[in-house]
Amino acid sequence: MAADIGSGDGGKQGFGKVEGPGGGGGEPGAGRPHARGALRRGDVARAEVAARAQDAGPAAAKRATGHSPGDDGPAPQGPQVPQAARLAALQERMADAGIDLVVLTPGTSWFYLAGMNLLGSRLSLLLVPRRGEPAWVAPLLEAERVAEAPLARALGRSAGRVCTYADGEDPAPAVARAVALATAGLGGPPRVAAMEERVARLFEWRAASAALPGVAWQPAEPLLVALRARKDLAEVAAIRRAAELVETALGHAMAFVQPGYRESQIAREMEKALRELGTRSPFGIHVASGPRSAVPHAETEDRVLQPGDLVWIDVGAEVDGYAADITRTFLLPGGDPGEAARKAAIYRVCYLAQAAARAAARPGVRAGDVDAAARRVIEEAGYGPYFTHRTGHGLGLDVHEAPNIAPGDATLLEPGMVFTVEPGIYLPGLGGVRIEDDMLITEDGAVSLTRSRRWFAPGPEPVLVAGPAGSPRPAGPGPAWQPGGTGAGPGGTGEGGR
Amino acid sequence: MAADIGSGDGGKQGFGKVEGPGGGGGEPGAGRPHARGALRRGDVARAEVAARAQDAGPAAAKRATGHSPGDDGPAPQGPQVPQAARLAALQERMADAGIDLVVLTPGTSWFYLAGMNLLGSRLSLLLVPRRGEPAWVAPLLEAERVAEAPLARALGRSAGRVCTYADGEDPAPAVARAVALATAGLGGPPRVAAMEERVARLFEWRAASAALPGVAWQPAEPLLVALRARKDLAEVAAIRRAAELVETALGHAMAFVQPGYRESQIAREMEKALRELGTRSPFGIHVASGPRSAVPHAETEDRVLQPGDLVWIDVGAEVDGYAADITRTFLLPGGDPGEAARKAAIYRVCYLAQAAARAAARPGVRAGDVDAAARRVIEEAGYGPYFTHRTGHGLGLDVHEAPNIAPGDATLLEPGMVFTVEPGIYLPGLGGVRIEDDMLITEDGAVSLTRSRRWFAPGPEPVLVAGPAGSPRPAGPGPAWQPGGTGAGPGGTGEGGR
Repeated sequence: MAADIGSGDGGKQGFGKVEGPGGGGGEPGAGRPHARGALRRGDVARAEVAARAQDAGPAAAKRATGHSPGDDGPAPQGPQVPQAARLAALQERMADAGIDLVVLTPGTSWFYLAGMNLLGSRLSLLLVPRRGEPAWVAPLLEAERVAEAPLARALGRSAGRVCTYADGEDPAPAVARAVALATAGLGGPPRVAAMEERVARLFEWRAASAALPGVAWQPAEPLLVALRARKDLAEVAAIRRAAELVETALGHAMAFVQPGYRESQIAREMEKALRELGTRSPFGIHVASGPRSAVPHAETEDRVLQPGDLVWIDVGAEVDGYAADITRTFLLPGGDPGEAARKAAIYRVCYLAQAAARAAARPGVRAGDVDAAARRVIEEAGYGPYFTHRTGHGLGLDVHEAPNIAPGDATLLEPGMVFTVEPGIYLPGLGGVRIEDDMLITEDGAVSLTRSRRWFAPGPEPVLVAGPAGSPRPAGPGPAWQPGGTGAGPGGTGEGGR
Repeated sequence: MAADIGSGDGGKQGFGKVEGPGGGGGEPGAGRPHARGALRRGDVARAEVAARAQDAGPAAAKRATGHSPGDDGPAPQGPQVPQAARLAALQERMADAGIDLVVLTPGTSWFYLAGMNLLGSRLSLLLVPRRGEPAWVAPLLEAERVAEAPLARALGRSAGRVCTYADGEDPAPAVARAVALATAGLGGPPRVAAMEERVARLFEWRAASAALPGVAWQPAEPLLVALRARKDLAEVAAIRRAAELVETALGHAMAFVQPGYRESQIAREMEKALRELGTRSPFGIHVASGPRSAVPHAETEDRVLQPGDLVWIDVGAEVDGYAADITRTFLLPGGDPGEAARKAAIYRVCYLAQAAARAAARPGVRAGDVDAAARRVIEEAGYGPYFTHRTGHGLGLDVHEAPNIAPGDATLLEPGMVFTVEPGIYLPGLGGVRIEDDMLITEDGAVSLTRSRRWFAPGPEPVLVAGPAGSPRPAGPGPAWQPGGTGAGPGGTGEGGR
């Protein structure tokens, strides 16, 4: 039957159904929502404790976070769930932007705000007024799930604000009722409304706009993109956990990065390991070797690895709907000595460029400056034309979201932002290198949520020299890497997690 | 990096990247597109041969279908690929409906017509005029993939018809160029255009409508839904193969349908088996037991199976983007004798109702009549109020598409239509039964693409008595079923596949 009557998003949209830990982080007083802008390094550790406890079972999660996910006890009230704080933050931004009503449709922003999602095949709307409580339009069959959504529970299980229609019924009256409910507290009819132009489909916009005649429509993306770019503790915990899972799986799959194995075998081992850890890559598993590694978005093929190959693995994991995203490159010993030297050279430059970009990440810096830090190292080494993409992208419920770590981007980095740093150098016909980590901006700097070893090439890991602000801290060289060897897995790091 | 620069749809949208076998079915002269409306039972066997050969490798596929998928030889010309025939069929329907231009956006209809898909994060449009060749709007990075799409190759690799824009550029000029190209053969400006209102997003519609001022817009769904409802041989082959895979996996997972195992364990075994077969369920794996089986859309939980439980498994598989969808119910021996008798009674009624609906399916019959055939049996047995959903849904690239096997639906069934037949009876607190098969309408009747045993309850399988047209054919009773037993797996069938 395939969830014919809307039993939720299922695996189709890639969202986990399990809510993350509560808004707090396990600290005394963490019942309050996490104050945005106060992320410090210690918070990551706390978020991790919460994530691990969550992982260990509801009882442990309850101890760590103050309430149990899926707890059937009294509904958590007010700001105990992050959704209430997110609603308040959205409404604040709406007031600043002069937007009276945001109309959301199923997707990642809906999930972010509501704490659950609906299938998109029937009309479902979440109407958020500038002030006052939201109202919903939902198919009758989903009424109960909507009324139990974390956001609805936080507002007191206001089932009366879920306006439903049965299959075969025109949903227009339900939309009209929901508009009336949502806008009652505005002190007048709404004048400016917004929908996500890249998410809302035509039938959803027609339904909403028919119920709001005379309203000026704007894209809702600017509001939501900025809001979602700053993660709260529950979100950081989920991404950190996803990073941990993907690194564990990578440690397993690495054993197969040896001449004689196929790209597809490595991908299968990776997939198996992720599955055993209870997760999956939200964007596939990309293994590229030899000349194919020079194609930045190569798909996994059946190619057999050869001595002297550059091989990269680009893979992710997902926890509670949040993605981690990592790339590691391996330079296999052997092959033509001249080519091996060229490959080692770009590996080294990419490694240093990536370290420079990570070191440049801190609050108040422009996104474009992080890109420039990596690009400068690569250009100075003469490989500028072979770094053909941006340095990174924001990471969260969507695998690509704000901020955009690209040349000239003026977005100021703020605490709570999570993004990839992944410069690459691709020499056509020879091979390519890309090294990717997931960075979290804290109040006083940045940490990498991916922590595993980054150097898998013959010879010692480069020593990063401390320089002026923005440069990498010094680190001792790591052990030389041998393919298939043990003890030099991704657990090792020469940089203490930075 | 997560396919940042559009390396295709990946797993995200659930489409396979491998094209199906060619348009033909392995018959001499099958280089021509399959003539719609000429599906006979023998065709299913031929389609299967093609699917199996495909499975056995490119060489075998080439022998069976006349050309190899992914063949790097000369581009197949004209109607050798099903996409050319699909384009012609769409244009014929457009002419009939007075629609000058259909504007498609990435999704299953795009995949159906183009033979490949694009990520939806950037603007991509496929503009199909009432007559003449289509044109495309695509991000620069996708230009090559679009030019290599089966539809584009069928039309002679017309790369000049792919209008591109670079990242950061306004796509409007590319859209204007594509509109001019696509509509040049219309003999005047287009007056009526259509987009899929349930697929196109607001930014896509804004881009298309800005380039087509003064045009009247209609929903494109009526055209595409009707077209896609009638499968060609390549599509039938894919669904049949998916059905075979899900039944093989079900045969494995069935061993765990015994008291003491958990719903989640059964689901995991099912998932593992599907994965080993190279597929996955496109809508999750739903196992419900005991009182929970009375909830038609119950999600898999950790409940331990008990003697006397009703247990159903609802699961699918996917081949080349096409879905199969099956449900089987098991009545475990034991439990309270009075309750066991009630459960056996609804099992028997559901079994007979489902057989009646399958027997009612043939060309020229209304979809509502198939629903009525099942509903009548259930109502006459007094369980009408406990059959709370429609009898079935169409199946293809979407898990739910046309036709709609629901009360009163007047759609006439046509050869090539594929849909589920899945009546259920749900007694709150006691348990539920649902039996689901995937039916293909042929020119002279119908066959079930799912062929496995349907009776997993103590006692002999009911004997279906031959009656007037529309009734099941007679069948000997199958062997009595024992949970966890071997030799009574889903391979057995008392009805010769019907």
